[in-house]
Amino acid sequence: MKYIDLRSDTVSHPTPEMREAMAYAEVGDDVYGDDPTVNALEATAAEMFGKEAALFVASGTMGNLCSVLAHCGRGDEMILGKQAHIFRYEAGGAAAYGGIQPNTLEVERDGTMSLDAIRGAIRQDNIHFPVTKLVCLENTHGGAGGAPVPASYIAQVADIARANGLKLHIDGARIFNAATALNTTVDVLCAEADSVSVCLSKGLCAPVGSVVVGDREFIRRAHRIRKSVGGGMRQAGILAAAGLIALKEMSKRLGEDHANARALAEALAAIPYVHVDMEAVKTNMLFFWLSADAPVDALTLSDVLKDRYNILLRPYVAADRSFRVVTHYWFRPEHVALVANAVRETLSVGSPEMAGD
Amino acid sequence: MKYIDLRSDTVSHPTPEMREAMAYAEVGDDVYGDDPTVNALEATAAEMFGKEAALFVASGTMGNLCSVLAHCGRGDEMILGKQAHIFRYEAGGAAAYGGIQPNTLEVERDGTMSLDAIRGAIRQDNIHFPVTKLVCLENTHGGAGGAPVPASYIAQVADIARANGLKLHIDGARIFNAATALNTTVDVLCAEADSVSVCLSKGLCAPVGSVVVGDREFIRRAHRIRKSVGGGMRQAGILAAAGLIALKEMSKRLGEDHANARALAEALAAIPYVHVDMEAVKTNMLFFWLSADAPVDALTLSDVLKDRYNILLRPYVAADRSFRVVTHYWFRPEHVALVANAVRETLSVGSPEMAGD
Amino acid sequence: MKYIDLRSDTVSHPTPEMREAMAYAEVGDDVYGDDPTVNALEATAAEMFGKEAALFVASGTMGNLCSVLAHCGRGDEMILGKQAHIFRYEAGGAAAYGGIQPNTLEVERDGTMSLDAIRGAIRQDNIHFPVTKLVCLENTHGGAGGAPVPASYIAQVADIARANGLKLHIDGARIFNAATALNTTVDVLCAEADSVSVCLSKGLCAPVGSVVVGDREFIRRAHRIRKSVGGGMRQAGILAAAGLIALKEMSKRLGEDHANARALAEALAAIPYVHVDMEAVKTNMLFFWLSADAPVDALTLSDVLKDRYNILLRPYVAADRSFRVVTHYWFRPEHVALVANAVRETLSVGSPEMAGD
Amino acid sequence: MKYIDLRSDTVSHPTPEMREAMAYAEVGDDVYGDDPTVNALEATAAEMFGKEAALFVASGTMGNLCSVLAHCGRGDEMILGKQAHIFRYEAGGAAAYGGIQPNTLEVERDGTMSLDAIRGAIRQDNIHFPVTKLVCLENTHGGAGGAPVPASYIAQVADIARANGLKLHIDGARIFNAATALNTTVDVLCAEADSVSVCLSKGLCAPVGSVVVGDREFIRRAHRIRKSVGGGMRQAGILAAAGLIALKEMSKRLGEDHANARALAEALAAIPYVHVDMEAVKTNMLFFWLSADAPVDALTLSDVLKDRYNILLRPYVAADRSFRVVTHYWFRPEHVALVANAVRETLSVGSPEMAGD
Repeated sequence: MKYIDLRSDTVSHPTPEMREAMAYAEVGDDVYGDDPTVNALEATAAEMFGKEAALFVASGTMGNLCSVLAHCGRGDEMILGKQAHIFRYEAGGAAAYGGIQPNTLEVERDGTMSLDAIRGAIRQDNIHFPVTKLVCLENTHGGAGGAPVPASYIAQVADIARANGLKLHIDGARIFNAATALNTTVDVLCAEADSVSVCLSKGLCAPVGSVVVGDREFIRRAHRIRKSVGGGMRQAGILAAAGLIALKEMSKRLGEDHANARALAEALAAIPYVHVDMEAVKTNMLFFWLSADAPVDALTLSDVLKDRYNILLRPYVAADRSFRVVTHYWFRPEHVALVANAVRETLSVGSPEMAGD
Repeated sequence: MKYIDLRSDTVSHPTPEMREAMAYAEVGDDVYGDDPTVNALEATAAEMFGKEAALFVASGTMGNLCSVLAHCGRGDEMILGKQAHIFRYEAGGAAAYGGIQPNTLEVERDGTMSLDAIRGAIRQDNIHFPVTKLVCLENTHGGAGGAPVPASYIAQVADIARANGLKLHIDGARIFNAATALNTTVDVLCAEADSVSVCLSKGLCAPVGSVVVGDREFIRRAHRIRKSVGGGMRQAGILAAAGLIALKEMSKRLGEDHANARALAEALAAIPYVHVDMEAVKTNMLFFWLSADAPVDALTLSDVLKDRYNILLRPYVAADRSFRVVTHYWFRPEHVALVANAVRETLSVGSPEMAGD
Repeated sequence: MKYIDLRSDTVSHPTPEMREAMAYAEVGDDVYGDDPTVNALEATAAEMFGKEAALFVASGTMGNLCSVLAHCGRGDEMILGKQAHIFRYEAGGAAAYGGIQPNTLEVERDGTMSLDAIRGAIRQDNIHFPVTKLVCLENTHGGAGGAPVPASYIAQVADIARANGLKLHIDGARIFNAATALNTTVDVLCAEADSVSVCLSKGLCAPVGSVVVGDREFIRRAHRIRKSVGGGMRQAGILAAAGLIALKEMSKRLGEDHANARALAEALAAIPYVHVDMEAVKTNMLFFWLSADAPVDALTLSDVLKDRYNILLRPYVAADRSFRVVTHYWFRPEHVALVANAVRETLSVGSPEMAGD
Repeated sequence: MKYIDLRSDTVSHPTPEMREAMAYAEVGDDVYGDDPTVNALEATAAEMFGKEAALFVASGTMGNLCSVLAHCGRGDEMILGKQAHIFRYEAGGAAAYGGIQPNTLEVERDGTMSLDAIRGAIRQDNIHFPVTKLVCLENTHGGAGGAPVPASYIAQVADIARANGLKLHIDGARIFNAATALNTTVDVLCAEADSVSVCLSKGLCAPVGSVVVGDREFIRRAHRIRKSVGGGMRQAGILAAAGLIALKEMSKRLGEDHANARALAEALAAIPYVHVDMEAVKTNMLFFWLSADAPVDALTLSDVLKDRYNILLRPYVAADRSFRVVTHYWFRPEHVALVANAVRETLSVGSPEMAGD
């Protein structure tokens, strides 16, 4: 990777081991169920999460879409965070294709929604109302700075869901980051969920794909939906080969990314004009922003870092001069000082234009 | 009407004049555009609202559904109040049938949403996002106690909408109540809206129906949608005959309902254990609630009023001991004292059971 | 009615008895289940059809839409005639709003589809396929010239449906015409169907509305769908009052319409240049067409009949010089000769322009 | 590949060159447009097809879904073959997710639909009708035995489409087979189409993926839809690397598959009890069936071939004793005699059970 790319962990390239595994992967036609590597991946995922079955899908969005549509019929309603990825960044697919109305609640800084708010959002049986069918959590919660959501909270939500005949889905795009931060395992963390979607790319470095886990009947429905949205892939074992390494190996090393995020947060916090929300740095994300009197604005900082230092850092909300930084496998400990120095230099001299360069 | 029915203005029966007009209505097959009374109703509505065209529909929900689907395609997003009728009480139809994602914002006590919140909810052009296409207001806002929303606010929202290529729809189920309370006319009040749906039942007493108004191209699209959801009615002139009286005559007398609501609010406020949000009484709705030490709870009060006094009053949120009261044509000034006395008596002696009766 | 209108039976106006009943109808808010006349209508319909429950809806299209969506979820498939009203004339609502794929089969001249074709259209359990959930029949079949479909055929289709876990819906817009022609009753004719939608307008003359009948659970689902598409009407008892007369009285006199259709067919068949498919005249429809050497074309005949004779007759397929004629309550026996003479005169002299008039 | 697998060309494994290219592929985050190999694949596809732009998707079904949804809005109608893959084998996705009604026409043995039937299926402008927006062809047509559809026919359909404001989409899953059989190039063959979806797997051997080509505005819309159905894949360059070889190299060798199909057809036709439709063998598919007096039935033949000879051959319609055979890269000329002998032996001795083995 030419750049030190901190825009997201989605930019992570496959590792050399993954490339080798893909090159030699045993494959078959997965639409016929004939791909041994996909089958191995799905069996591994199911076992790791303690669920009956798993399904390989092309993306986290597809994993969530298949899950939500498998849980909800046309005209049903789901409760989820207003800051949830499903609501904000998945192009409204659940409504567009599923006819499912999102009922959104505020997400707290710790990635949770108030239990009372969840209870209050559940619809009574009345023809004026859609039928509430699902609660979605996100873990870690990207809209809450990568906050890991503990099993105890999930259990409370699951209690509410069960008491009201609802299903509980976890958008676990970064569930291994959550498990790592909470010092637990994903089967424990997801024990109370009816379904979980899990990204193999992002921090786990696989080039493409997610898995969805749940009970057999749920996976059977999700499988049909995957086919109908065009997610049935032929010799998908190529991708699954990388996914197996993601699940088995890469899931164990996320603590390094978290340590790097914290180290980088501390290094950045020491730079004039830079403010870091240290308390929110719990996994592989950190947020910082420039003070109003900083000599450069967010776009300039971003441009200079890219052009001079080969560092990719995208303003989160440009008007706020804020940045979201996400660490991953390809961001190594030695990059911490490089990035901090680059930010420090840029802020001390201002932009090239400003400095007359 | 056997009962003094304060549950809603939707319970209002047609007036004797309406019944006569229906009996003698000239009719035709409206699916062929042949019904002269429907045509007259639509022409009258368009003229009153200063819009190019109008469409008669079977209900307020159908009016909103046709409008929202005419403005938004599959996968688009609309911004509206979390307390809006369209979001809360229309069974999620826009998502279910239109594939439209609602992006909900908090509604203030005055029936408005913060302009900044509206601006912030508009999506940028990015494949992760649905395309924002529509802002919906509600006037009067039922979820805000019947608050009338002034033209000045609507114009501000319309400015934001236009600047971002969005359309503005008003759920004007009670738009004549709003115009009455604001001492203006509906054409002025709705001048900046691209579409308005207007109930002919509710305070206007027609038995069935709403009209949607907007420009010709919008109405053409809404017309197709009306047909496809099954809203094409044959000799609908029967209903339109009552609708014409609703628009022309009944729309002028809503000040009486507002005065009755205020009088009833004042009478109730004078009763021990009863609290009324007097400031919120602006049109034909009032909210009151029982204090925690009231000798009867909300359900008991409701039951006693029905069984002993022939008064229908439905708890709004039973756990809060709160009630929503809506006045209309069939609630006459002389009923104010009847209702207040009934509530006073019930609260003074408690329920029959409690009183050992 | 100024014109003798043979375009369709949908043009039928309410009878004087219906107008009176509407004027004095006892009403309530049907959304609350409070309208006694609607309740009476639904009870009457359920009883006449021998089903558990019924639901009043705004149109035949809404009746079919609610039924089909109640039977099928998103992504399911239904089998129906390529000439069926649901497929051809209901704006694709089942696909548009229900996400239901129509699998269409040819309809024979007798209104049936081949049983083998139905069997062959049922999908196996395979993720490549939508799930077949429903077979729809139409009776009488408008696309087959108003052919009445006998109970024996319906039973055969029902057997196939049951054996494959499918539901059977009948679009019974003119089911009373079918029962009349087959000399049976609607409960016998529809005994094997899971749901039937029945128009109260058309031959039965009510101004607006249809009823759907089926078991309680089906009607409960259809009720929710009716609300969500905007078909919940407030004091719908006004319309139901006419509907009650339609069901109880008007359903008994359809033999007159059939006799008139046959008499008119015979009178037309005797006119030079006019060809009538006599064998197909089984209920209240007849088709005729002009021979290629007729002195006027279809549009001219239509225009002359309207302008000179106050007779409305719409070309069915103009290029074929064909006409569909539908008799109803307002087409009286004495109109047969009037219409036949008008056609004869027009064809003998040609159009005004052709005749130099 | 352990088996000689003739079930479909979808079973084709990636070639060694593809595996190597995947192992060394340069990648980036394609959701950000950063993947150079995906960009190269899309540029190559666009150029080969003479279209402005291209989009890599996860499957042929996704390619068709994105195309059809990009052309049609909710409630529109498309005209396509009753035997088309989109209608039969894509789980009804266009209706389920797009709200698009399929209007299906019979497909002739040569893969075409009658031009008159297409003209007749286009809806007039009438609120009873969905709006016709699209005609879909398939080339080669799998439901017509792999028949290649010539450019001259496509041009005629395109003329009808343009004259009626419709778009023309080609499901070109095997478009390179068609071009090969017709001795032309895909840009000439698809010149009149607004969009084409092209499989990189199947005969072209890539493990996963298809491309859609069309003008920039169409691809922009398809891109949004791809994202919303979950088809945005991160380091998709891994797959695109194989896709590039598929387009550039594998597309040139399909004549071998066609020759092998013909050779196999001839060898099978010489076997007693085996009937081959020789005239229909035009690309890489052939159909054969067993005569009624054959000593084994279709399932037995299939089982014996698998268990004794490592040959996979799936009955097409078991009741008809028919088989569809599809050749591809991994079916080599030397396999022709192996397969023919295996079939001959099985049919001469009957099944093991029948032979007392």
